[in-house]
Amino acid sequence: MTQTTQDKKLWGGRFAEATDGLVELFNASVSFDQRLAEQDIRGSLAHVAMLGRVGILTPDEVTQIQDGLNAVLADIRAGTFEWRLDREDVHMNVEAALRDRIGPVAGKLHTARSRNDQVAVDFRLFTKEAALDLAGKTRALRAVMVAEAEKHLSSDGAVSDASGPVILPGYTHLQVAQPILLAHWFMAYAAMLERDEGRFRDAAERMDESPLGAAALAGTPWPIDRQATAAALGFARPTANSLDGVGSRDFALEFLSACAILAAHLSRLSEELILYSTFEFGFLSLPDSHTTGSSIMPQKKNPDVSELARGKAGRVFGNLMGLLTVVKGTPLAYNKDLQEDKEGVFDSYDTLNVILRLYADMLPKSAWHADVTKAAAARGFSTATDLADFLARQGVPFREAHEVVGGLVGLASRSGRQLWDLTDAELRAAHPLLNAEVARRLTVEESVRSRQSYGGTAPERVREAVDAAKAALG
Amino acid sequence: MTQTTQDKKLWGGRFAEATDGLVELFNASVSFDQRLAEQDIRGSLAHVAMLGRVGILTPDEVTQIQDGLNAVLADIRAGTFEWRLDREDVHMNVEAALRDRIGPVAGKLHTARSRNDQVAVDFRLFTKEAALDLAGKTRALRAVMVAEAEKHLSSDGAVSDASGPVILPGYTHLQVAQPILLAHWFMAYAAMLERDEGRFRDAAERMDESPLGAAALAGTPWPIDRQATAAALGFARPTANSLDGVGSRDFALEFLSACAILAAHLSRLSEELILYSTFEFGFLSLPDSHTTGSSIMPQKKNPDVSELARGKAGRVFGNLMGLLTVVKGTPLAYNKDLQEDKEGVFDSYDTLNVILRLYADMLPKSAWHADVTKAAAARGFSTATDLADFLARQGVPFREAHEVVGGLVGLASRSGRQLWDLTDAELRAAHPLLNAEVARRLTVEESVRSRQSYGGTAPERVREAVDAAKAALG
Amino acid sequence: MTQTTQDKKLWGGRFAEATDGLVELFNASVSFDQRLAEQDIRGSLAHVAMLGRVGILTPDEVTQIQDGLNAVLADIRAGTFEWRLDREDVHMNVEAALRDRIGPVAGKLHTARSRNDQVAVDFRLFTKEAALDLAGKTRALRAVMVAEAEKHLSSDGAVSDASGPVILPGYTHLQVAQPILLAHWFMAYAAMLERDEGRFRDAAERMDESPLGAAALAGTPWPIDRQATAAALGFARPTANSLDGVGSRDFALEFLSACAILAAHLSRLSEELILYSTFEFGFLSLPDSHTTGSSIMPQKKNPDVSELARGKAGRVFGNLMGLLTVVKGTPLAYNKDLQEDKEGVFDSYDTLNVILRLYADMLPKSAWHADVTKAAAARGFSTATDLADFLARQGVPFREAHEVVGGLVGLASRSGRQLWDLTDAELRAAHPLLNAEVARRLTVEESVRSRQSYGGTAPERVREAVDAAKAALG
Amino acid sequence: MTQTTQDKKLWGGRFAEATDGLVELFNASVSFDQRLAEQDIRGSLAHVAMLGRVGILTPDEVTQIQDGLNAVLADIRAGTFEWRLDREDVHMNVEAALRDRIGPVAGKLHTARSRNDQVAVDFRLFTKEAALDLAGKTRALRAVMVAEAEKHLSSDGAVSDASGPVILPGYTHLQVAQPILLAHWFMAYAAMLERDEGRFRDAAERMDESPLGAAALAGTPWPIDRQATAAALGFARPTANSLDGVGSRDFALEFLSACAILAAHLSRLSEELILYSTFEFGFLSLPDSHTTGSSIMPQKKNPDVSELARGKAGRVFGNLMGLLTVVKGTPLAYNKDLQEDKEGVFDSYDTLNVILRLYADMLPKSAWHADVTKAAAARGFSTATDLADFLARQGVPFREAHEVVGGLVGLASRSGRQLWDLTDAELRAAHPLLNAEVARRLTVEESVRSRQSYGGTAPERVREAVDAAKAALG
Repeated sequence: MTQTTQDKKLWGGRFAEATDGLVELFNASVSFDQRLAEQDIRGSLAHVAMLGRVGILTPDEVTQIQDGLNAVLADIRAGTFEWRLDREDVHMNVEAALRDRIGPVAGKLHTARSRNDQVAVDFRLFTKEAALDLAGKTRALRAVMVAEAEKHLSSDGAVSDASGPVILPGYTHLQVAQPILLAHWFMAYAAMLERDEGRFRDAAERMDESPLGAAALAGTPWPIDRQATAAALGFARPTANSLDGVGSRDFALEFLSACAILAAHLSRLSEELILYSTFEFGFLSLPDSHTTGSSIMPQKKNPDVSELARGKAGRVFGNLMGLLTVVKGTPLAYNKDLQEDKEGVFDSYDTLNVILRLYADMLPKSAWHADVTKAAAARGFSTATDLADFLARQGVPFREAHEVVGGLVGLASRSGRQLWDLTDAELRAAHPLLNAEVARRLTVEESVRSRQSYGGTAPERVREAVDAAKAALG
Repeated sequence: MTQTTQDKKLWGGRFAEATDGLVELFNASVSFDQRLAEQDIRGSLAHVAMLGRVGILTPDEVTQIQDGLNAVLADIRAGTFEWRLDREDVHMNVEAALRDRIGPVAGKLHTARSRNDQVAVDFRLFTKEAALDLAGKTRALRAVMVAEAEKHLSSDGAVSDASGPVILPGYTHLQVAQPILLAHWFMAYAAMLERDEGRFRDAAERMDESPLGAAALAGTPWPIDRQATAAALGFARPTANSLDGVGSRDFALEFLSACAILAAHLSRLSEELILYSTFEFGFLSLPDSHTTGSSIMPQKKNPDVSELARGKAGRVFGNLMGLLTVVKGTPLAYNKDLQEDKEGVFDSYDTLNVILRLYADMLPKSAWHADVTKAAAARGFSTATDLADFLARQGVPFREAHEVVGGLVGLASRSGRQLWDLTDAELRAAHPLLNAEVARRLTVEESVRSRQSYGGTAPERVREAVDAAKAALG
Repeated sequence: MTQTTQDKKLWGGRFAEATDGLVELFNASVSFDQRLAEQDIRGSLAHVAMLGRVGILTPDEVTQIQDGLNAVLADIRAGTFEWRLDREDVHMNVEAALRDRIGPVAGKLHTARSRNDQVAVDFRLFTKEAALDLAGKTRALRAVMVAEAEKHLSSDGAVSDASGPVILPGYTHLQVAQPILLAHWFMAYAAMLERDEGRFRDAAERMDESPLGAAALAGTPWPIDRQATAAALGFARPTANSLDGVGSRDFALEFLSACAILAAHLSRLSEELILYSTFEFGFLSLPDSHTTGSSIMPQKKNPDVSELARGKAGRVFGNLMGLLTVVKGTPLAYNKDLQEDKEGVFDSYDTLNVILRLYADMLPKSAWHADVTKAAAARGFSTATDLADFLARQGVPFREAHEVVGGLVGLASRSGRQLWDLTDAELRAAHPLLNAEVARRLTVEESVRSRQSYGGTAPERVREAVDAAKAALG
Repeated sequence: MTQTTQDKKLWGGRFAEATDGLVELFNASVSFDQRLAEQDIRGSLAHVAMLGRVGILTPDEVTQIQDGLNAVLADIRAGTFEWRLDREDVHMNVEAALRDRIGPVAGKLHTARSRNDQVAVDFRLFTKEAALDLAGKTRALRAVMVAEAEKHLSSDGAVSDASGPVILPGYTHLQVAQPILLAHWFMAYAAMLERDEGRFRDAAERMDESPLGAAALAGTPWPIDRQATAAALGFARPTANSLDGVGSRDFALEFLSACAILAAHLSRLSEELILYSTFEFGFLSLPDSHTTGSSIMPQKKNPDVSELARGKAGRVFGNLMGLLTVVKGTPLAYNKDLQEDKEGVFDSYDTLNVILRLYADMLPKSAWHADVTKAAAARGFSTATDLADFLARQGVPFREAHEVVGGLVGLASRSGRQLWDLTDAELRAAHPLLNAEVARRLTVEESVRSRQSYGGTAPERVREAVDAAKAALG
């Protein structure tokens, strides 16, 4: 980027003294807002076409400006555009390049417009598209989750000899609680991602308004047609209040909130994948393509993607907190503080964009060890609730059944046995309705099969959920 | 609250050693989750009725439990219920009180249910109701904004002799930019609040699912009817995945995000009201009923409500940050970390609930000084853009017009004059199209009147916006 | 708390209209700042003694006020003091109670003082004491860490038959990396806690200044002696600038920052303890006294203390974020926003106070399974680096050695063997310097013993570190 | 940056499958950690010199490696170094370039070292230097504050005809409270900055430990000399625990906390400067060199530097929150999540570095309008406290005096007068000790002069404070 300051500042008429060099550097946003160049030129093209249609510009002026803008856009796309720091921001860079190319008529582009509504429209276009893109990628990852669920409804998808659906320990407090299907676990994340998609779509819809024509803050005396520019840019409607149009940033905050919640979900998923691929859990082998080694420890196979996905939630949260803090402190309408709105949105979008794609690619390549997960699901007296439920179904109040089984668990635990290893005598002593045969039926398969309630982990229920999700995904 | 630990812990069967006293204190949530008592009992009533209907409990058991629960609820409402810290949480307190009252049959209430789905349903009920309540209160404040806008479309509502609508300086960078209508300013906040309401309603709709029946995490073998309990509790449907039902908290995060954005808007409003009621601005007198004095400075009239509203945005942001951090770090399904979800939701709800009500009450009682605001709106060459627009309409490229006017502003500023004080000679020297008559027409009224673009500050436009808002509010 | 509003507001002279009830509720801070009652009365006692000494009050007035304040303090300590919401805050409650008790002379206490410097001195006293208390408790937990380290330098402290120091897998990326001593792991946390203590002590020292006498913001015309009140209250000195004294809150921010970093450390510790006490890791049994059970799963033994400690880091971060946001937005000097400073400090202090105590109690009662940890430390080719180091010591460039061993790990991994199971032929094929004897020496004990560099995990090094820490702790 | 992946991954021996391209992009940190190149090479030079001294490398090997590293450093400084994304990070880029240049002996540089301790030492070097640099720049800005204070102790420094020190309204709740000296206001910020400097210096001292030699996490069997490398790199000592050395990031958190608090202070200053340079306040003219204009409103002179400084506090807070969140969730020792530690530190450092320099430059060029500030200081009954103090000094209990004056303020306010405009009769009616002569003495100069308490705003006190600060600054 050229950093010389030859250009006369476009707003410099009033200023007797040159802007301090470091001030210029501090104020300049072109290093990051050049990312809005496409949106900026789309906005200008829509604006100039409208200025022509309502008679503010002549057809010839419109053509000159449009041709010039398209030429500038071509340069930018080709990577031959010279971004200049002394031209401060993307708007000034584009406009000055237009003037270099077509002369003073370029100045007419700024009729009935201000940088305040210009940046507002550029940034809304970007954020809306980002929201819709993340909605789509969230949906794509959901489809992967559903496909993985379906795959693991039979053991064919797993690395083991087991038959039947893959069984995973279900945890609470990271202690084995009850056996579940691996497919059920995948569907839990599918459910979270479905809501994440909804949040992005709601945000996109709420921000689907064009501020173009709000001008500096009060509207303009020029006879412009805001409905036309809104329509040309694909917005549902123009913003209804000019102050709000240039001064509000809740659309960016809502986008960042949706990003933060999605990031939290992806961090939870990452936390589980990191755990499950430890030697100690041993449930999962991540693909070589998505793990890395160590410069000093040749044996390492590190779940970097998941670790970064987990860690990068922090930066997304930070981006949200940063912009909330900024917005909170500003009176209406535009304040320079608001220039801080963009980098966090860009960064959050890029971060989640990559993580969503990586997970959609990585999960199908990961190998689940069904024998290990099943053995783990049997540990920790995970079917004790089933025994309590058995007693309760015979009429024992649940709280009493719970205490009886709690005592048996303690007994088995102290003697290094499972519940099904307890003797008839021990079982009967605990409760007259118990015996060894009852205990022997406490398998993890039986436990899973029994949880038939709607939304439960029984294979039929999960199959129904998978089918419904596939239908919804189309 | 009684803090003795006489009760036998309900889950204590397995434990040989007593829980440490400080641990108990640390774990106990009853000091804050007792707030969910109504929701907890509604959930239990729905659950027990369903257990009866599907034949798990006898009609007599159902009646006993229902009567008992209603009696407990009556105690709670009457303030005679003894909350016991040693009973850990709201669920255990209610259940133990039920057992004290109706004996062992109380234990059957917990059939086919876990504290995990119980707390999930209680907390969702609360959060959904809180979201709808804040949506309503946000709407009510919006109605106040619209009414204030309408009031100030004529000067009758203002404390001054001025005629016509009240004119306010419009600011960018807190420098006077262009004159606007006070009504236009109110409508900007109305627009923000409209989107805030939408966020709460979207959140309420997305969380409108009952997790009851997800049990610990995997569903239950009991033949329960989750659709029935969902309907009885006013939910649109049951959650479709049991792990997700007990382990997800994005509903609380989305609620807190909507709260944070609303808090940022209310903070911006507060910042402006604090500024406008300084001696230096002098635009606004806040009502005595909503300001306070000083213990040492008898003359002070402090805008405490606005200062607190501005400051309390920080706590709402903190609540969001806190829960994002918690959720991010937890594997599925329930972890005790999630107990941290409630206080931030309660606190954010209470905080915004009060601020919304206070502003709805305070704004109509505040007096705007129309003469002061109009004089201020004329300061700072606020109509310079109008002069540039005049030149541009004569065919001068806007950028050139901008430079001409910039030079005139510099000239006037250096000599302590307004633009309309410049001489014919000075104006013509700057541009041949200018003269004293043109300059004299640059009044703030004329400036405001001219901004006729859709969403602009011209009185007709604002009137239309007010009418549309009134129609929308019904 | 009595909520009636009979009292005439102490600052109410200027106000014609009664304060709105909800405003009063919103403004009132007595529900939480009553916690500063001791500090408030200590501040008043120091102030009144000084007022007497410099001749502003008569000896008799001083005695009356002192006796009155002591009587009020006695009531507060006895729990018989009636806190009244209509008296707004702790200061007004104490002062009004004093007036009720000793009559109008109570009014003289407020001579040369404002609520601004009063609350500043109360809150600094509290925060300084809180910082020193957490410094002490952090030190106490460090002593526990060092004692645990020493205990596990021999196997006597562990639940197993192993001899020698307890060996733990050292992880990077949660993948087993290299064997370490459990004692070394404890000393890592001791090192973090040592710096945490330092942060609290630095904060306490930096805030060790009395703002009393700064009055509203500008100082006072009364001939007060600020050095005297500072000394009487145990401060190192008075603040040197009155505006700064009443308007700054960086002392609270620094305290909260130190809290947040400590909370992050305690969360890391908690995360590890939760992992290590899973069935899958199996390294650690937490004491029954510090774990809880499940209402539905009788077998569960949940690490609630660690989960809450991990989760509560979020609230501490939120408290810091909240106050940063508040302070950032306020001009000098006092603004009501700053009333938001206290709850976060109280809450962070209480939270960490309990966690530090619980861990100091819980860690010595936890049982480490040395056989399990040692077996785990051998997994995952954790001594592969040692083999690479062996080659490097024979002159092979480390990067080449690393590749050779990486290949051997791949070979062993694919065939389900350990490095020491590889054949002479396989080893020699990989590098001529390798053979079966070299491979057999790759034990975890040998690995640990070899890491003799300063700060390394070799038993002598850890013993030296323990001895140094014990000496430092005194 | 070249993005092709021709290099064989240095840790790639174990991996059968190529790393996915997007994974590589996601993992790579060289786009930002190349900023650590100088630190990385300094670390390597110290390491290799030590390896030679203890006999691990031959003198010839040492010379080759040192020459190679210096040549690489020269390339980097000259901007001719080719940073390659496929070489992942700064460490791999430097090492691979070294190998390209000197052949396989380059591989010996990594003896007794891991990327874990390498990045830890690089990042500590950077952060320590950043902390000391910000400490210095904070001190420099403090010196400017003190110089400005001294300048405005007489009116010579101000833009007005007033004599004597420049008087400013002192605000609480942004309502004029009491007159103060502008010099006193500057000294309040000097006090805040002094503590900010202290925080940076404390942080630098606490992190002044070299982790080099901690290797992957457990130390190394090589006979290295960590004291030597620590000393060579300018550290006070090596870290005492290898796990802590590679796994801790509290040094970065403490740095970010100090940054966040400084940013909050600079935001408060900015908020005041923005207010004071509005038309409505009119206290201050910011220099043209540090303000900007508007593309549409030729008259605007926007305080962009202050707005950005205020807004950028948000990003610094976000950086802190981000890293707290990351650290909180990671077990020991190194996890890839920690790669997220650097960007926030770099960004916070750069942000504050620029703001501190801009303010040091801008404040002396700003012009204060002493006549305006003095007139403002007289508004709002700012000397009412003086009147109350007068009564109190005559023996009236302060609370009673406060009420009397409050009534007079109400009376004056309702009739549009100042206190000194009240009649003898009105004053005597309020209290027998009052009369017109007393009221006439209530000037702002007298008010300021009277506040003689230590730390107060009386000119002698402020002069003493300025002299003390100058002496302290040396």
